[in-house]
Amino acid sequence: MSLSMREKWSKEFGEWFRDVLDEAEIYDYRYPVKGCGVWMPYGFAIRKNVLEVVRSILDSLGHEEILLPLLIPEDLFKKEAEHVKGFERQVFWVTKGGETELDVKLALRPTSETAIGPMLKLWIKAHSDLPKKYYQIVSTFRYETEATKPMIRVREITTFKEAHTAHATFEDSERQVKEAAEAYSRIFDEIGIPYMRNKRPEWDKFAGALYTVAFDTIMPDGRVMQIGTVHNLGQNFAKAFDIKYLTIDGKQEYVWQTCYGISERVIAALIAIHGDDRGMILPPNIAPIQVIIVPIPYKGFEEAVDKTCKEILSKLLEKGVRAKYDDREITPGNKFYYWEKRGVPIRIEVGPEDLKMNSVTIARRDTLSRERVEMTEVLKRVNELMVEIMEYIKSRAWSWMKQNTRKATDYNELKNMAEMGRGVIEVDWCGRFKCAHKIEEDTDLRVLGEPWNEDIEPPVKCIVCGESACKKLRLAKTY
Amino acid sequence: MSLSMREKWSKEFGEWFRDVLDEAEIYDYRYPVKGCGVWMPYGFAIRKNVLEVVRSILDSLGHEEILLPLLIPEDLFKKEAEHVKGFERQVFWVTKGGETELDVKLALRPTSETAIGPMLKLWIKAHSDLPKKYYQIVSTFRYETEATKPMIRVREITTFKEAHTAHATFEDSERQVKEAAEAYSRIFDEIGIPYMRNKRPEWDKFAGALYTVAFDTIMPDGRVMQIGTVHNLGQNFAKAFDIKYLTIDGKQEYVWQTCYGISERVIAALIAIHGDDRGMILPPNIAPIQVIIVPIPYKGFEEAVDKTCKEILSKLLEKGVRAKYDDREITPGNKFYYWEKRGVPIRIEVGPEDLKMNSVTIARRDTLSRERVEMTEVLKRVNELMVEIMEYIKSRAWSWMKQNTRKATDYNELKNMAEMGRGVIEVDWCGRFKCAHKIEEDTDLRVLGEPWNEDIEPPVKCIVCGESACKKLRLAKTY
Repeated sequence: MSLSMREKWSKEFGEWFRDVLDEAEIYDYRYPVKGCGVWMPYGFAIRKNVLEVVRSILDSLGHEEILLPLLIPEDLFKKEAEHVKGFERQVFWVTKGGETELDVKLALRPTSETAIGPMLKLWIKAHSDLPKKYYQIVSTFRYETEATKPMIRVREITTFKEAHTAHATFEDSERQVKEAAEAYSRIFDEIGIPYMRNKRPEWDKFAGALYTVAFDTIMPDGRVMQIGTVHNLGQNFAKAFDIKYLTIDGKQEYVWQTCYGISERVIAALIAIHGDDRGMILPPNIAPIQVIIVPIPYKGFEEAVDKTCKEILSKLLEKGVRAKYDDREITPGNKFYYWEKRGVPIRIEVGPEDLKMNSVTIARRDTLSRERVEMTEVLKRVNELMVEIMEYIKSRAWSWMKQNTRKATDYNELKNMAEMGRGVIEVDWCGRFKCAHKIEEDTDLRVLGEPWNEDIEPPVKCIVCGESACKKLRLAKTY
Repeated sequence: MSLSMREKWSKEFGEWFRDVLDEAEIYDYRYPVKGCGVWMPYGFAIRKNVLEVVRSILDSLGHEEILLPLLIPEDLFKKEAEHVKGFERQVFWVTKGGETELDVKLALRPTSETAIGPMLKLWIKAHSDLPKKYYQIVSTFRYETEATKPMIRVREITTFKEAHTAHATFEDSERQVKEAAEAYSRIFDEIGIPYMRNKRPEWDKFAGALYTVAFDTIMPDGRVMQIGTVHNLGQNFAKAFDIKYLTIDGKQEYVWQTCYGISERVIAALIAIHGDDRGMILPPNIAPIQVIIVPIPYKGFEEAVDKTCKEILSKLLEKGVRAKYDDREITPGNKFYYWEKRGVPIRIEVGPEDLKMNSVTIARRDTLSRERVEMTEVLKRVNELMVEIMEYIKSRAWSWMKQNTRKATDYNELKNMAEMGRGVIEVDWCGRFKCAHKIEEDTDLRVLGEPWNEDIEPPVKCIVCGESACKKLRLAKTY
């Protein structure tokens, strides 16, 4: 495919993204509350398929789905001191019921560590109850004061999957952090989203956590978006909420906790990263419609074409392929445009020429290539193509991320790269706040942190102070 | 089954219900905000299966699932005058973001007619866009000032399925009311919940509607619970929100709307109505675990029993039966108690006697009867039993409702029945508010309304004023 197919996509990404959300009827951002959008039917169906991937992976690892209340009383919300410092400026408060002022203000959950706290205290009694691994998929709320952006920086996060776990030992919580990171890697792999895993610096970890591992991806405009985080909470919340268990030796000990979250940013990344100038390209496992069948009418052949289309449709549906026959009375060209925008991975065209040759024409959404396929081979070819398309868009996405990840070896090079403003820059670092902070001051880059659980080249000297370096530091312009 | 199996169930229903929610780990009501509970894993799994029934029926009728924001700005919420009058005393208000007072207060949706209003205005242009049939499944909020009750009268309704439709003509909206009522009937039939359909009186209709049809069921304590409502909204919201479409003749006309809702009360009814003194009895299509396999250990036979249990388990799982093997180290009696409470419809016991005879013992949760089944027949018998159990509990539930629906022919009889305080009472009625109201004043009954779309005996004379009657009126003590 020619590069020009991704010009608008990369150069005017903001506009591209809003246009796709709007024209493909994914998410309507015209709702009259800042930072709140409406999931439309097609978008909702994509969201549902993504959530099925998420649920099946978490369930297979023994997580249990629950549902906690939205409202958190102020006193509960303020129990963990660091947590409240990190979130209080972002909290929406319910202060009235009808005309009555509430005695205790209620927070709309920005996240649910403080909601599950009192429940874990009730649910956990002894070591035999541990570990506990819960998750829920809910709306959470942040009073964002920065500019909002549909699906990416919103006030109602409509699709927050948050997991909360409790363990008998620190070691088991560390094992859980690894399990969670592997689970997230599998989720992103299933939908072809490339990622890097960065341990966020001390000053940018989750409020109340020991440390935070983040999943970052690079968007079409070259800016980095955080698409998932895993936190080891240590015993901070256990102490604040008095969550204890009886050890084998009969002692009361605080549990160790982790939590990890992903949001509709996963869906935003999915839409953005696989796209091109014509619109979305959906991974076949996520596409609500995997195959669209378009009749190419020609005088005298209308009935025969219609009949063949319907036969193909029923054959595909029967075999579990999510196929649809578009028999609307608009031109084939309009239909092509319509379904390309919506990212349907495979298009089958049936015209008079196809009828004569007892074949169909199959077009791939990813490469836009077309091929003629014998009628008897259609199902087989469709199934092959679904695998090929997934492989192609996934490997293209990973190449894109690698191309946009660069090493800077001296400070000038770093500043030049920063000015280009695309992708991730890796440097050697002494590990000190002041050196990382200087880069943030001199450029508009933000510290992503250090590679987590990754084989790295041994660092040599800090790109800022020139002293002996012990770490790699990743930086980028971020969302 | 002996009647005594349903003594506590009917005589101390409130306690029975809380005990089941708690012991079967359905819904934890100890969360520290009044009227808000936590869905625990087992309850969440039941809820998920119920929602699958709901979704599949609505989807099959062409409804599209969407997701609207939670927050409704005050000015939007107040656009339809009757609506706001009906709801304003029940609304939770968000007034602060962080430390900032918001310019416009935000309502936590009590229901979403006013949230979808501005979207329908954007989405509907011409007659070809109609009808539109949307639904969402979300949390809604009511600042209940009456005593709350887990799952039944709550401040966070966690499982509100609300549908919103728009039509070109009044006739089409009337057709939609019927379609919705049929959809709800199918949903309740699928889970075996008996219902009657009552057109609520003028003074008790949905705020902003032309009229309301409600689904009512009778709970074990004899009180009536509303489990679903269907409303014809006429053009009230269309006018308030300026939702118009272009007719074939090129004119702008307001659309006609309906809306209809069900909530976790469906799940409460499901748990309550099928239960007995030992706990829940779940319909097999809803049960997260359909078959529990319990080994009956006997010295020397442990391994053989274990092996057989595992073989049965894998055979059932392979055929798509949701089976589980309980190999915990507690007594069989404890296991029986545990799974009976949780309503698992079928229990398979494997003991030394069974091994000898190459059979198993199968116990039904509904009738508590046990039978010996040959090993080769297990799968077949399980599948038969699932059908038989569903039929049994459904027909028992309908009998229960019919037994508890009585006609009163004179005012004294009505007052006597009211004092007994169980079930639904039907009377002849002149149709006037003052007569209905007098009954409400003289008894603690509440008017349910008149039978909707039902063949009824012709009414003779009003039970209150003695004048010629044109309607039947249903009354009951209600939740």
